[in-house]
Amino acid sequence: MKRVYFFGAKYTEGKADMKNLLGGKGANLAEMASLGIPVPPGFTITTEVCTEYYKIGSKLPEELHAECLEAMKKIEEIVGTEYGDPDKPLLLSCRSGARSSMPGMMDTVLNIGLTSKTIPGMIKSTGNERFVWDSYRRLIMMYSDVVMEKAEGIAVSDGKGIRKQLDDILEEYKSARNMKSDTELSTDDLKELSNEFKVRVKESLGKDFPDDPMEQLWGGIAAVFKSWNGKKAISYRRIEGIPDEWGTAVNVQAMVFGNMGDTSATGVAFTRNPATGENKFYGEWLVNAQGEDVVAGTRTPNPLDDSTKNSQNEHMPSLEQVMPSIYKQLDDIRTNLEKHYKDMLDIEFTIQDGALYMLQCRVGKRTGVAALNMAMDMLDEKMIDEKTAVLRVDPKQLDELLHPIIDPAEENKFTSILKGLPAGPGAASGHVVFTAEDAVAWKKQGEKVILVREETNPEDVEGMRASAGILTARGGMTSHAALVARGWGKCCVVGAGDMKVNAAAKEAKIGDIFLKEGDVITLNGTRGYVYQGSLPMMDSTEDPRFQKFMSMADKFRAIGVRTNADTPADAKIARDYGAEGIGLFRIEHMFYGEGSDAALFALRKMIFSATKEERVKALNELFPFMKKDIKATLEAMEGCPVTIRLLDPPLHEFVPQSEDKMWEIAKALNISLEEAKKRGQSLHESNPMMGHRGVRLGITYPEITEVQVRAIFESAAELLKAGRKVFPEIMVPVTCGFHETAITRIIVDDVYAQVIKASGLDKIEFKYGTMIEIPRAALRADEMAENAEFFSFGTNDLTQMTFGFSRDDVGSFMNEYIEQGILVDDPFQVLDRKGVGQLIKIAVEKGRQTRPDLKIGLCGEHGGDASSIEFLCEVGLNYVSCSPFRVPVARLAAAHANLKAEK
Amino acid sequence: MKRVYFFGAKYTEGKADMKNLLGGKGANLAEMASLGIPVPPGFTITTEVCTEYYKIGSKLPEELHAECLEAMKKIEEIVGTEYGDPDKPLLLSCRSGARSSMPGMMDTVLNIGLTSKTIPGMIKSTGNERFVWDSYRRLIMMYSDVVMEKAEGIAVSDGKGIRKQLDDILEEYKSARNMKSDTELSTDDLKELSNEFKVRVKESLGKDFPDDPMEQLWGGIAAVFKSWNGKKAISYRRIEGIPDEWGTAVNVQAMVFGNMGDTSATGVAFTRNPATGENKFYGEWLVNAQGEDVVAGTRTPNPLDDSTKNSQNEHMPSLEQVMPSIYKQLDDIRTNLEKHYKDMLDIEFTIQDGALYMLQCRVGKRTGVAALNMAMDMLDEKMIDEKTAVLRVDPKQLDELLHPIIDPAEENKFTSILKGLPAGPGAASGHVVFTAEDAVAWKKQGEKVILVREETNPEDVEGMRASAGILTARGGMTSHAALVARGWGKCCVVGAGDMKVNAAAKEAKIGDIFLKEGDVITLNGTRGYVYQGSLPMMDSTEDPRFQKFMSMADKFRAIGVRTNADTPADAKIARDYGAEGIGLFRIEHMFYGEGSDAALFALRKMIFSATKEERVKALNELFPFMKKDIKATLEAMEGCPVTIRLLDPPLHEFVPQSEDKMWEIAKALNISLEEAKKRGQSLHESNPMMGHRGVRLGITYPEITEVQVRAIFESAAELLKAGRKVFPEIMVPVTCGFHETAITRIIVDDVYAQVIKASGLDKIEFKYGTMIEIPRAALRADEMAENAEFFSFGTNDLTQMTFGFSRDDVGSFMNEYIEQGILVDDPFQVLDRKGVGQLIKIAVEKGRQTRPDLKIGLCGEHGGDASSIEFLCEVGLNYVSCSPFRVPVARLAAAHANLKAEK
Repeated sequence: MKRVYFFGAKYTEGKADMKNLLGGKGANLAEMASLGIPVPPGFTITTEVCTEYYKIGSKLPEELHAECLEAMKKIEEIVGTEYGDPDKPLLLSCRSGARSSMPGMMDTVLNIGLTSKTIPGMIKSTGNERFVWDSYRRLIMMYSDVVMEKAEGIAVSDGKGIRKQLDDILEEYKSARNMKSDTELSTDDLKELSNEFKVRVKESLGKDFPDDPMEQLWGGIAAVFKSWNGKKAISYRRIEGIPDEWGTAVNVQAMVFGNMGDTSATGVAFTRNPATGENKFYGEWLVNAQGEDVVAGTRTPNPLDDSTKNSQNEHMPSLEQVMPSIYKQLDDIRTNLEKHYKDMLDIEFTIQDGALYMLQCRVGKRTGVAALNMAMDMLDEKMIDEKTAVLRVDPKQLDELLHPIIDPAEENKFTSILKGLPAGPGAASGHVVFTAEDAVAWKKQGEKVILVREETNPEDVEGMRASAGILTARGGMTSHAALVARGWGKCCVVGAGDMKVNAAAKEAKIGDIFLKEGDVITLNGTRGYVYQGSLPMMDSTEDPRFQKFMSMADKFRAIGVRTNADTPADAKIARDYGAEGIGLFRIEHMFYGEGSDAALFALRKMIFSATKEERVKALNELFPFMKKDIKATLEAMEGCPVTIRLLDPPLHEFVPQSEDKMWEIAKALNISLEEAKKRGQSLHESNPMMGHRGVRLGITYPEITEVQVRAIFESAAELLKAGRKVFPEIMVPVTCGFHETAITRIIVDDVYAQVIKASGLDKIEFKYGTMIEIPRAALRADEMAENAEFFSFGTNDLTQMTFGFSRDDVGSFMNEYIEQGILVDDPFQVLDRKGVGQLIKIAVEKGRQTRPDLKIGLCGEHGGDASSIEFLCEVGLNYVSCSPFRVPVARLAAAHANLKAEK
Repeated sequence: MKRVYFFGAKYTEGKADMKNLLGGKGANLAEMASLGIPVPPGFTITTEVCTEYYKIGSKLPEELHAECLEAMKKIEEIVGTEYGDPDKPLLLSCRSGARSSMPGMMDTVLNIGLTSKTIPGMIKSTGNERFVWDSYRRLIMMYSDVVMEKAEGIAVSDGKGIRKQLDDILEEYKSARNMKSDTELSTDDLKELSNEFKVRVKESLGKDFPDDPMEQLWGGIAAVFKSWNGKKAISYRRIEGIPDEWGTAVNVQAMVFGNMGDTSATGVAFTRNPATGENKFYGEWLVNAQGEDVVAGTRTPNPLDDSTKNSQNEHMPSLEQVMPSIYKQLDDIRTNLEKHYKDMLDIEFTIQDGALYMLQCRVGKRTGVAALNMAMDMLDEKMIDEKTAVLRVDPKQLDELLHPIIDPAEENKFTSILKGLPAGPGAASGHVVFTAEDAVAWKKQGEKVILVREETNPEDVEGMRASAGILTARGGMTSHAALVARGWGKCCVVGAGDMKVNAAAKEAKIGDIFLKEGDVITLNGTRGYVYQGSLPMMDSTEDPRFQKFMSMADKFRAIGVRTNADTPADAKIARDYGAEGIGLFRIEHMFYGEGSDAALFALRKMIFSATKEERVKALNELFPFMKKDIKATLEAMEGCPVTIRLLDPPLHEFVPQSEDKMWEIAKALNISLEEAKKRGQSLHESNPMMGHRGVRLGITYPEITEVQVRAIFESAAELLKAGRKVFPEIMVPVTCGFHETAITRIIVDDVYAQVIKASGLDKIEFKYGTMIEIPRAALRADEMAENAEFFSFGTNDLTQMTFGFSRDDVGSFMNEYIEQGILVDDPFQVLDRKGVGQLIKIAVEKGRQTRPDLKIGLCGEHGGDASSIEFLCEVGLNYVSCSPFRVPVARLAAAHANLKAEK
């Protein structure tokens, strides 16, 4: 049994694919080293030793010592210092590294090797006495806690943990000297504190702080193993489902310091520009500094090379100028890394006393614009093939390319005044208005407006359409505002809870800032930020590279992409974005928003009818509106299938709220206002989501189904006779079993026969199908498929009922569920594979048992989500349908899914 | 291929188990005949001939004729008349009979064989000229429609169906003579009409009405086959899932008439008394009458034998007196049938010209009391064994034995004034009151009251408890009133829509009847009837036979029966009824009803808290109330497990409605009324059933879980120290996956450790488990079982979410769903095996994969439903839990399930 794997230069023994044995961190360090990149050398003690440690009674196996010492010799050979050497001492770090990341759950010990004997040599070699004493007092604090008290289990004398005791000493020391921060402590202060600490350790733990480097090393290693069974780690594993027997590896690595003088330095870099994709080495560095100095922003870092200097840093020295040979070495590493990984990388490096060390190397994050440009560049450079290029742009990043965005190079110069949820991607600037009416009025004056509301409701839709962006104080990612905005591809930030909106006074308060009507603000709907004033924008939509990229993606896609569209205008946009049909046309759309008054009035008369006779009369008035909308949309989608969903929402949604409108209805039906109110109230439901809606309306009032089906077939017949090719598909919502689809099918067949006879046509090509949105429908899919020729998953509702989560009410606990890791993602955004996904699998399997050629799609929020699409491809769906602006995202996501499955 | 199976006397060829070939009707007729019982002889043409009929182009196969004629000879031999014989003609009926019953979906032709040649002979042999002509005009109407127009497809001349044409002739004939009913038509009228009919048939169909008996026969047989593919029958098969290829059989049978003079008669009888179970032949008969005369009540029927005469009919002639030898024959048949079927039977007979024919024999319906008495009698008589005796009482009938009921022998002497849904079984009489306050006030005066309400709400519970019975105008079987009443075993009728309640005026209107406060009414909660006045009651609870029967049932039961109980009093009742533990103790119970004010106030303070600090303070006030209730219930159930469910309902349920109460809260929390209202409103939810409740409260406010768990462990610890044996089980509601149970388990373990330490006990035996009531929980049962040691299905909620049916809102469509056959039963009453049942199966299987000894139960309405229990036994549950009054029902149902599975 080999217990220790070395990494560093030619001696490297591990590889990236040995994570089970070496843990994630150890395997990655080994990979870098084996590429010939100078990493600080070290060794990994395997996860098997962890198991062994516990097996033999929580102690290190005898055999480990020799293996470690052998590996140590290699570290010393490479670094040129020796562990425990008084003149030029080597310091080590001891870190955990499990198979799967458990951030912060296990212990780390740094600066191992500092003892009374090595401190002077360390001071000499760093030339920084304060730094060395500060490192030493940190070692004592960390080690006495993690190793002595926790791992070795030494009881403290006075019931207070040793860490807390030393912290108290430090605080008292500072407050006695009126110091506020640790940085005010001088070298002498730190020296004195170190001594006080050692005295207290001895007093409290009854044992000297170890002054032997080897004792420190074994203590550190054992402490990491011990922390695998710490309380935090066990709880974490229980929740994350990580088996106890996996164990952790221990990584022992030489410490390197970029703050050892003017021949030392530290920096971070990207192998290409992460904002634009430009093929130039791009980074920042600082002389005589530690990593955190670059990141923290306390000192302004210098540019890495001359070619990337800009107006703000052209006067500053580049690494290329100051250390030309190190720069050359770094630039070579850049080339090698890109050649190996065939991607843009994000690297961290430290120069210690003229020697370059790479501390980290990983695939770099980038903007959507950069991702597209790099992919197309690398394809041109023949570095990657088409498939890889397609995979290089995350579908989520397409949002950035489809909407105007705040210029990323400029955004960080501004400070946001408010943060909310990024509900509708892209950016928008405009004048603040507080009511839908004001939004419409300002728009008519030719102004761009941002509608600011506590939350929106259906009566705001005209104002929302008139606005460039929408900002709300309440609501989640699937609130009314968010759904409407995303449907229209409109920029939207919701749930910005720090804002108090007073619509009556036409003002909003954010901390000390007051927003008044007419003030200009800018929303970043991709990230959820709000800024005062107008920020610079950019637009990448028209880029021919984008067009080329999308056609390439389509080559690798196996499933269809349709759109959810209710109007000819939306249908047109979606076709331009590549939609291959309509997967969801909602009949009820005609009752919402501008121009819907007459249709809505007819609908209300139907809803308030007390007899079938009254109802049929009202339905006949409704018929022309239905036919007009359906016909226009079928026409706009000529040549493609159009799935028309029968009336879905509960009727009480359309009951008027205002007394005026209630009067109109009463008058029209010749009943008293009181009677009208009573009828309206009788429609109220405790849980309308699970109430009288969808097919249930069609069962109790078959005439409602009949009139819709007639509108569909008559529209189709007229278009066919005019030589147009149309393919209507009739979809029944909210079904939960066989009979509802069977009974509705009888109505459909009857009306079909009547229309065929009246039109003189031979036939109208159409399909009959059902939504699968109720858990029971999925469980009974075999019998549903007897009548249904297609299924369309309605995963919004299916998610609600599978989880028992009302989408309108989850706001009160969803954040907590995600923060506590109960849910990885909001299941209304990313399809829940483990629960809802199981039902989908059951339904697909059972449905195709009955009808092998069953066409299966999905219409709903998840149809535009990349992760969800991947799963849906896996389980064998034929298409997804999403809002027009998500169509390119879905196309790319479908290509990704296919390419990933190929691997 | 044998096409025809004869039945009747010794020639009988079929059997009861040949339903696939002979259809249900044919097989049953054959069974009776083969027992030697005189049935009118006949023959069944097999379902295979139906298939053949369609295969050869909708015509009868040649070979059929000879087989039919051969069978006909046997009929003639037995009956002693000949088909087509002018002197003594035989008449036949032609009826359909599919494998599975399709009532009314196919055609029937009666009186076949009446022609101009046979009419005189028929008149002679019946002595009833009018009867013969009436039969003939009926034959023409039926045959010309079913056979000539529909089956033979002859087009009518003027677009109006022949049946409608003949109906019109009949109506015109009557109206010209000022007749209102068909019975006013004289013999001559009928003769004249028959002739007019035949003329019209010839005119309209262009073909003479067949005057040849054989032509009538073949026409009738073909028409039945043809009707298998009638529109109605196809629709019915599509909906019921009956395959088209099954086909129907045709039954041709001799017609017998009980109205051929004074040597003819007809009657119905039970082999024992169906109301009491007494072992006496019990029936009614009429001389010179047809079956419908006995049933219709136009003539008062005579008693069958002398020993069952009562004061009302002692002067009337019994069959035993009038036709002693026929009576003797019938009594022998009674004995033989009981010997064969080993059960009480319901029989119909006709005596034609001194010859007895049995028309029907089936197991007789009986009251619960009768069922129990017969089962115990037949056991004593050694007619049946113990297992059979247990199976003889339907668990549903136990209701009658557990509640006082209206004496069944007396009830039919009264006329009900109102019909509603039978929501709470048993009967109750009392004075009408219209408010909960009045109910309490009258009760205090020592009066029994019936609370009459439009519908009840939680504020009525005190009044409901004070009442003997509850009657509501609205609400379904699972409305508030129904649930509360059943929980208390209280008589209740709900949804009596014909009643208008005016609580302010203290009156209710039912048609012309006004009910005022103080009026006495009687409810039959088992059947849903309401009577004026006080009806005689009977009580069967204390019967030692009942006790013996239940112990016998327990011997054959394989699963446990627990109860849902929230108070020591309920626990006590349930133990008396045989409950073996509590399967559901709801912590929230302490906030409802009498004496809950102080606890409710503390809870409200908790709900209205804005900070964790405030909340913890309020929870500490709540703690003693929780502990008191839990401890008392654990004590009352000593020795048995008690499953305590953590707080389940959404908090807004407890927000006070009145301004007064809101003030109290505001004062207690030192906030403004406005602020209190705002906090109350912020808890409002769109779909509270799927909102912030159950474990979701515990996740966002862990302190709520903590205080409940502490109350449980401290109660248990104190009782254990006092030497009592208690077994608490902690159950988490509304979970949907692994993490919620894992996180809650951490709190439980923490509190457990604290209580153990403080109490000085070694351990408290307890179990930790979860409800399975969200579809996702069932799908993720494998991971739920990692922390949960038991599951309890909450099928009320599981049904709601699997169907997407809000229990409070299904009223608007549930009746329609059941009437149209979309649902066979209300799934909230009878567990939906096909949908919800699938999830239960998945959960049981997955749960036991992880934890083979997982204990699995169910708490909810279905735990007291026999059909549901049968299914739950099949899938392997360990116990069910139901309301105290359902415990005996569940015990018996569990025994039934086991005995049926054995077969």
